[in-house]
Amino acid sequence: MLRPSARQYVVARPVYSEDAFAQEHEKIYRQRKTPLDHLRLFFTCNSKRAKNAALSLLPIIQWVKIYQIKEWLLSDIVSGVSTGLVAVLQGLAYCLLASLPVRYGLFSAFFPVVVYFFLGTSRHISVGPFPVLCLMIGSVVTRLVPDTGPPAVNITGFEGLTRDEQRVIVAASVNFLTGIMQLGMGIFQVGFVVMYLSDTLVSGFTTAAAVHILVSQLKFVLGLTVPGLSGPLAIIYTLESIFGQISSTNICDLVTSLIIMVVVFVVKEVNDRYKAKLPVPIPIEVIMTVIACGISYALDFRNRFKVDVVGHIPEGYQAPSAPNLHIFQETAVEAFPMAIVGFAVAFSVAKVYSVKHDYTIDGNQELIAFGTSNIVGASFNSFAASTALSRSAVQESTGGKTQVAGLLSAIIVMVVTLSLGFLLDPLPKSVLGAVVIVNLKGMLMQFRDVVYLWRRDRPDCVVWVGTCLASILLGLDLGLAAGLGVELLSVVIRAQFPRCSVLANIKGTDIYRDRKDFLSIYEPEGVKIFRIPAPLFFANIDFFRSKLVEAIGFSPLRVLRKRNKALRMIRKLLKKGDLKWSAKGFANSSCGPMHDSGDDDEKNLEDLDLPMDFKDLPIKIDWNSELPANISVPRLELHSLVLDFSAVSFLDISALKSLKTALKELIRVEVDIYIVACDTYILEKFHGCAFFDDEVHPSMFYVTLHDAMLHILEKHPESKTEKMLYHDEKVMTTVTVHHPMGRGGSLRSRDKMVPDPETKF
Amino acid sequence: MLRPSARQYVVARPVYSEDAFAQEHEKIYRQRKTPLDHLRLFFTCNSKRAKNAALSLLPIIQWVKIYQIKEWLLSDIVSGVSTGLVAVLQGLAYCLLASLPVRYGLFSAFFPVVVYFFLGTSRHISVGPFPVLCLMIGSVVTRLVPDTGPPAVNITGFEGLTRDEQRVIVAASVNFLTGIMQLGMGIFQVGFVVMYLSDTLVSGFTTAAAVHILVSQLKFVLGLTVPGLSGPLAIIYTLESIFGQISSTNICDLVTSLIIMVVVFVVKEVNDRYKAKLPVPIPIEVIMTVIACGISYALDFRNRFKVDVVGHIPEGYQAPSAPNLHIFQETAVEAFPMAIVGFAVAFSVAKVYSVKHDYTIDGNQELIAFGTSNIVGASFNSFAASTALSRSAVQESTGGKTQVAGLLSAIIVMVVTLSLGFLLDPLPKSVLGAVVIVNLKGMLMQFRDVVYLWRRDRPDCVVWVGTCLASILLGLDLGLAAGLGVELLSVVIRAQFPRCSVLANIKGTDIYRDRKDFLSIYEPEGVKIFRIPAPLFFANIDFFRSKLVEAIGFSPLRVLRKRNKALRMIRKLLKKGDLKWSAKGFANSSCGPMHDSGDDDEKNLEDLDLPMDFKDLPIKIDWNSELPANISVPRLELHSLVLDFSAVSFLDISALKSLKTALKELIRVEVDIYIVACDTYILEKFHGCAFFDDEVHPSMFYVTLHDAMLHILEKHPESKTEKMLYHDEKVMTTVTVHHPMGRGGSLRSRDKMVPDPETKF
Repeated sequence: MLRPSARQYVVARPVYSEDAFAQEHEKIYRQRKTPLDHLRLFFTCNSKRAKNAALSLLPIIQWVKIYQIKEWLLSDIVSGVSTGLVAVLQGLAYCLLASLPVRYGLFSAFFPVVVYFFLGTSRHISVGPFPVLCLMIGSVVTRLVPDTGPPAVNITGFEGLTRDEQRVIVAASVNFLTGIMQLGMGIFQVGFVVMYLSDTLVSGFTTAAAVHILVSQLKFVLGLTVPGLSGPLAIIYTLESIFGQISSTNICDLVTSLIIMVVVFVVKEVNDRYKAKLPVPIPIEVIMTVIACGISYALDFRNRFKVDVVGHIPEGYQAPSAPNLHIFQETAVEAFPMAIVGFAVAFSVAKVYSVKHDYTIDGNQELIAFGTSNIVGASFNSFAASTALSRSAVQESTGGKTQVAGLLSAIIVMVVTLSLGFLLDPLPKSVLGAVVIVNLKGMLMQFRDVVYLWRRDRPDCVVWVGTCLASILLGLDLGLAAGLGVELLSVVIRAQFPRCSVLANIKGTDIYRDRKDFLSIYEPEGVKIFRIPAPLFFANIDFFRSKLVEAIGFSPLRVLRKRNKALRMIRKLLKKGDLKWSAKGFANSSCGPMHDSGDDDEKNLEDLDLPMDFKDLPIKIDWNSELPANISVPRLELHSLVLDFSAVSFLDISALKSLKTALKELIRVEVDIYIVACDTYILEKFHGCAFFDDEVHPSMFYVTLHDAMLHILEKHPESKTEKMLYHDEKVMTTVTVHHPMGRGGSLRSRDKMVPDPETKF
Repeated sequence: MLRPSARQYVVARPVYSEDAFAQEHEKIYRQRKTPLDHLRLFFTCNSKRAKNAALSLLPIIQWVKIYQIKEWLLSDIVSGVSTGLVAVLQGLAYCLLASLPVRYGLFSAFFPVVVYFFLGTSRHISVGPFPVLCLMIGSVVTRLVPDTGPPAVNITGFEGLTRDEQRVIVAASVNFLTGIMQLGMGIFQVGFVVMYLSDTLVSGFTTAAAVHILVSQLKFVLGLTVPGLSGPLAIIYTLESIFGQISSTNICDLVTSLIIMVVVFVVKEVNDRYKAKLPVPIPIEVIMTVIACGISYALDFRNRFKVDVVGHIPEGYQAPSAPNLHIFQETAVEAFPMAIVGFAVAFSVAKVYSVKHDYTIDGNQELIAFGTSNIVGASFNSFAASTALSRSAVQESTGGKTQVAGLLSAIIVMVVTLSLGFLLDPLPKSVLGAVVIVNLKGMLMQFRDVVYLWRRDRPDCVVWVGTCLASILLGLDLGLAAGLGVELLSVVIRAQFPRCSVLANIKGTDIYRDRKDFLSIYEPEGVKIFRIPAPLFFANIDFFRSKLVEAIGFSPLRVLRKRNKALRMIRKLLKKGDLKWSAKGFANSSCGPMHDSGDDDEKNLEDLDLPMDFKDLPIKIDWNSELPANISVPRLELHSLVLDFSAVSFLDISALKSLKTALKELIRVEVDIYIVACDTYILEKFHGCAFFDDEVHPSMFYVTLHDAMLHILEKHPESKTEKMLYHDEKVMTTVTVHHPMGRGGSLRSRDKMVPDPETKF
């Protein structure tokens, strides 16, 4: 009964094995849902579900109903205009990453936004180009349509097109395919896969992406002509090429970029510091771009300093076109990581804002929204809809309340596309490069995570470094796959090398702790308590078995074989009449020691592993007593082994089989096994997988460790003699030992009861 | 104290929080070994270690010393001769898998065996060609040197060589590289990686390999000319090619093969059944081959039936040659899975025999042995040293005691190579193909594993099927990688969707079980016990948090925000004088309900997530009492939440951060958190990772669930009122409810105390 008097823990109840417990406390029968039931439930259709499904497909219906025109519209307009200006600039700049004419960046900041307006569940993210995704598209584009020479593969429909036109088709087709993948994942409700992209992985991956972006922009900042490379080690070759021609740097480009970088960097810091005081952050990037544009036009940078400028941007949009199926085939492997990365980043940004502003977003609907955005966008030659963190931050911080702000930003972009594009003509590409590089600050700052993780959690640090290095060296798609592999492996490794320990009772309590950690402990003779501190599965079951053998100090299989050999010999001697059985025990008829002739040593080797069979012998032999005819077998002090299963959260079939073998070997040498604190579901699994048989009984399960111990003490009253454990003297001198309860015992030297695995056999 | 009287569980001790426990039971200070210590230990050198290292590098020294010439030599000779005959035959047959001239198969059954004789630790395996490995080599060989046309890549050193010579160079070079990898793994002691190849994975993989082997041998059995293909879907194209020309089947080949297959199959079954009675299994394959050879010679199969025969085998060995470095580059990715598979299979076979015959084998030394065997063998143009299960079974079952038998089998092979090769000239290749196919029986029988696994363990079944399908369709190397990925994912998934449960006290005990499972339970008001039944890491922490919110029935962050908003309003009203504080409580000065104007709703949104700050208020507000000015905030019945951490075996940094956020939110709405049964190492990790701060205290840890509960009951005496839980009526009627202890309570309808997450907010 619960008697919480004076902070005392008092319990009096019967000792429970799992069987006894189940008998006394009958379980309520609960019907479990089968996978079929889940499926049926999933496909059940009624009017409410149908209405909900329809509503969830068009989230705009829900938020338009609650749109507070008076309070929200003004904020949305301010936010929309600010975001629109940034979107124009980023659209142009990120186009350089994708190795496409800048015009298409404006498309990407328009079409996806409009589609997302209707389908998206996040109210605060700014949809459009995302630098990492642009870079991934750029790597496909330069692989299929290199800077020099013919396209890498023969693609139907490329005949008679310019290099840029070919590239646009490649980018649009890849984007279309990405959209199909996202839409498919959304429809099949598998958005949960982004769960596997842990924060650590994403941090390592985006840091690597930032390095790639930095390197890819160097050529614009330095005004060099560097071929776009892709594939493993491309970054090394690119750097090689850049440093090979570093002497031909265009000084005008370099100076322009440096000025812009410094100014933008400083003003952004100011924006950050006085966030609370500024009504709207200073749009320094836009201002600097406009100034640079003006100066470049006034001083004629293009002709005077041979600066690479944006050049003529054709006005207006292009008619929609179908994607190229041949390109689908060529890029399927690359489109998948793009679909994942694009969605994962957008979703994580959206999640942050949804928590902040307290509304729910729906992962699968987001997938559908981005998938459709990409498909529609790709038909109009836009690319890579996701979200840029910096742009979303602008939209949210300038007061954006809903995607109305996003729609307005798209309108700003449209105005530029339709009629103001000519103003951008003299803009040096180095300015765009500088803007991209400055925006990398946040991503590159993630390098600090390494130090943090190294101090806190080594495996996570390895995942970060592994993902980052692989993504830098192998490229982003392969790097992501490698990072995922390392991450999954890290989980397995965490579970794989657990610190097994032998427990002992803390005197005067029902608590059991590692026997090496405490002085005032009680360990009955012949009992070992072994704690398994991790789930058991194929990769750690052997490790656990070897630790168990180490803990008990002998190999049960070897002991069993020796006993069976001894049994064989006794049987032979009895048959020959050399040995007689009397009431007092065995008596040798002939004198002198007898030896096993050894001639049948290798015969019927398998029989030695079977349980001992006493049926044709007069008595059951006590192996720890003196044996007749000088037969010697190792003595076992151990009569009971308790396995603490409390931390075993799952068990696979390899572990189950191997565990059964291990237990059988122990049972055959007459060690009683007790499994305690086993999870209900694991117990059910034991029953379902034919774990029990003539030798392994379900009666070995006990509710708690203390229950099993009490049962053992009752069964083996001789064990109650207390036994003090050996402690290293060096340790003793370094700690002060308190025995506040006055129950501390004296210390003896290493107890004889603990068999030494090395000397005994 | 332990009082095991009359099977009663009686405990009386103080209630322990982890802090109290640590104070009363001081821990012994143990110096943990740092990684540096391990490294130092690893590189410590003394004479004993040096001697042991030298000895372990040449295991032959150890077993030669104990070699019992009288008893072992005869067995070894019998075994060696039998194994030698099988080795000759398998050497020839497996060469067909590797798409090489049959002569080189004999080399492979000689050189590696001799090297292994000196370096290997297993006494029973028969080293030499392994069909799966041969097939993998064959796929590299046909990729680089196709049946028709020039080599796939321009390789230096190929000029002026015949196709077969080029292939031999490729095979030898790949093998050399494999050897280097194995040797490297052995030296760096990373043999444990084979641990990741679970039985399930290996079973699925070898079954797929058997299918590949079967398909590859069809052309020999049918006497067709099919180009060797490799890469994804190669098996489909090969089958297409075979069935395209099925009408040109060579009937003589087909009949010969069928006869051989049937006879060998039947006699092998007989061998199996009368294993105990036969002194040596009937070497039926050798007998049939000799007969087929004779008949083919007598009837002149080659010319009369256009049967493809082995043809002239040049006698003697070739001079050693260096591997081709260019091929290393081309095949590095393929050599790695070969190194792993070759070693893993040999090691697992060796392990079985080492357990049976009770000696130890050393994984890393085995890697060194196989690595050296491959390197030396490759220098003499042999390939793919591992072990074939069937051949090892012959060596062990015919009485082989040590590698002396292996050496003798190598001598038999040498005799054939040097002087008897001409006898094999008329042997039809279809006979070899038939022998290979018959030997697949064991591997193909593994298909039965699918049914077994489906019944016992679904995730394992998925791993099997995934590995097998991927290996069949993508090829063995990619398939192995994919299978490994699925396997690692299966471990993560097992840990990822645990069945969280809310526990309740089983009346009259200190035992806590799932409240839905039992009737006679006790659940104090305002207390929830939540069990986390799995390790916490990035992939399941969100799942766990949502389950926790579901269990407690409200979102703490939302409650906190509402309370903070209410606080803001109270403060404003107090300031304006609309609200006055008197000893009795708050009193409205103005009449009528007041509403939050909502104008500062969106301002300082982050402030709402901070802890409530009462410092400028006269009293701490009791949120569950009537609030002034008609302000309403949700009432919380929950005052204490207990998290059962007993099954949390590890915790990564993402989980730690997220857990801290979750706990903070709860603490800020004045819910007391108790974490119970937390592992010592996880507790240390909490301390090491700055988990604790002003709000999250280490005092929340309790030794057992019951300790925490007793503490809570003392702190909240009002909770002691018993509360019966709602149980679904349908459930009630299907079970008989016993209350042997007479403590069962009555049933009420759904308790009001359990807040409904949907209606409340």
